[in-house]
Amino acid sequence: MSKPAIAIDMGGTRIKIGIVKDNVILVSASIDADSGNGLRNRLPDIEKIVKDLMNGQKLTPEDIAGLGIASPGIIDTNEKKILSIDKKFGDAPEIDMEEWCQQAFGLSFCIENDARAALLGEWKYGKAKNYDNAVLMTLGTGVGSAAVMEGHLLRGKHFTAGILGGHFIINYKGETCNCGNKGCVETEASTWKLPSIAKEYSSFSDTKIAHVSPIDYELIFKLAGEGDFAAMEIRDQSLQAWAACAINLIHAYDPEILVLTGGIMASSSYIIPYIRQQVENHAWTPWGKVKIEEAEFPASAALYGMAYLVNSVG
Amino acid sequence: MSKPAIAIDMGGTRIKIGIVKDNVILVSASIDADSGNGLRNRLPDIEKIVKDLMNGQKLTPEDIAGLGIASPGIIDTNEKKILSIDKKFGDAPEIDMEEWCQQAFGLSFCIENDARAALLGEWKYGKAKNYDNAVLMTLGTGVGSAAVMEGHLLRGKHFTAGILGGHFIINYKGETCNCGNKGCVETEASTWKLPSIAKEYSSFSDTKIAHVSPIDYELIFKLAGEGDFAAMEIRDQSLQAWAACAINLIHAYDPEILVLTGGIMASSSYIIPYIRQQVENHAWTPWGKVKIEEAEFPASAALYGMAYLVNSVG
Repeated sequence: MSKPAIAIDMGGTRIKIGIVKDNVILVSASIDADSGNGLRNRLPDIEKIVKDLMNGQKLTPEDIAGLGIASPGIIDTNEKKILSIDKKFGDAPEIDMEEWCQQAFGLSFCIENDARAALLGEWKYGKAKNYDNAVLMTLGTGVGSAAVMEGHLLRGKHFTAGILGGHFIINYKGETCNCGNKGCVETEASTWKLPSIAKEYSSFSDTKIAHVSPIDYELIFKLAGEGDFAAMEIRDQSLQAWAACAINLIHAYDPEILVLTGGIMASSSYIIPYIRQQVENHAWTPWGKVKIEEAEFPASAALYGMAYLVNSVG
Repeated sequence: MSKPAIAIDMGGTRIKIGIVKDNVILVSASIDADSGNGLRNRLPDIEKIVKDLMNGQKLTPEDIAGLGIASPGIIDTNEKKILSIDKKFGDAPEIDMEEWCQQAFGLSFCIENDARAALLGEWKYGKAKNYDNAVLMTLGTGVGSAAVMEGHLLRGKHFTAGILGGHFIINYKGETCNCGNKGCVETEASTWKLPSIAKEYSSFSDTKIAHVSPIDYELIFKLAGEGDFAAMEIRDQSLQAWAACAINLIHAYDPEILVLTGGIMASSSYIIPYIRQQVENHAWTPWGKVKIEEAEFPASAALYGMAYLVNSVG
């Protein structure tokens, strides 16, 4: 029997905190990530919210299986450390999170990459249920991924396996990425890169995009739908880049199903059919078709995944 | 105790046949692949050579563990069938190889993708020995790959995992590949694509390349070394493409070591340092450096791998 767990999803813009049992969120709250100022400054607020949520549910630490954090970056799940993380939460690798968790709550602790946590949630309770080979791709501020192969969540020797889909090179003559690589998927199409992609369009000052801020994909898809030429170009190039990422993930991990999630999926009615068609036309899968599905829990899969992990580890 | 095995490496230009015990070739022969005329036409010659080699060694079927074939393409190792293969040996998927092997020799049969077989050879006896996480990349007529993760040879649900490194998209706006995909590694840099890459150079008719046939990488590296401008351009672009493939393989499979092999590695003194430097500069490996090594058995790793497989299966 699984017990409720404290599950925290450390996004770049919002931190979601929930008390979760299996795939049910008993109660939750969220705060601004304020990630530019580091994680350490956020810990007292997180602690207060967790305690408030527990009190509100009349739960003591004895009722709770443990606390699990889904974090961006490369996570050593054995040592329970953040090894490497983009600019967001830059101080995180220096913080002993397990010690913090022990001192604040007396709870056991685990931490996992956020895309892996989301795949775990979708695999145990959502769209990837009953598949032993599944890949998740998340389109948002960055591009994330994770893979389950032959019934095992792929982590790899140094914890980087499965999660670097956004840093597959899809344009080897392309621009330098935040990660130091060149022509990554993220550099070609992601929300963090979008404003500079838009600016590069020579016709930029003539388009509606020039007059709106911030530029995000919701806007791009909207303007493209209205026939704005620059927005259509950017939309089409981004779709091509995401389809290339999907095909590379399929070629790398040989899944039965690819689950798509992330903030950009608000435009899923456009994205899913495009990627499905590109994969059908271009991926080398002589055995048949990879299923391409939108996530069942776009907002909460990572929380469910962490609650599952907390119960499996503890 | 392993017994000698019949190991066959079905290359696109030559078919190598050996009687192999562990990593020792007791005796071997090779014939022209003549792959354009299909595999069925080649089977009587292969049968004759195998029997001659066995007779020469005074070996009967009872002395032999079985027969194993390393083949290009996607191989169903359970059903022992070639599922999909490039134009080479186009009739192979229709042939019941296990039945042929049984009728010709009364021997047990196994078949595996050639890059996986080569990685098995390097993993059990060569450069990847003692590593539980290793990737092989083979540069030649095509670009092949294979991966060992956490001590297991990666095959995947549909037998495509690990082996499609040459069909990772590294130029998503690039040209169509033989496989139906776009901008694959092979389309950017491989021996089969090299003549058309060379022809595309606008300055082509002015360079020495124009006056030589066939155009292969040995020639490109030689002319580039002599300062031929077009050859230098092609060499540098090809190196970039192979480095991008190496980085994608490292990002996908998280290995400790990357083993490079294949016909183009005759120019290894140039290729290895370049790829090593690119991987050090651009791969996201916060844990340290991936070892980049030339294969220990560039000509025979696949034969050793098949001998190993024959003994493990049989």
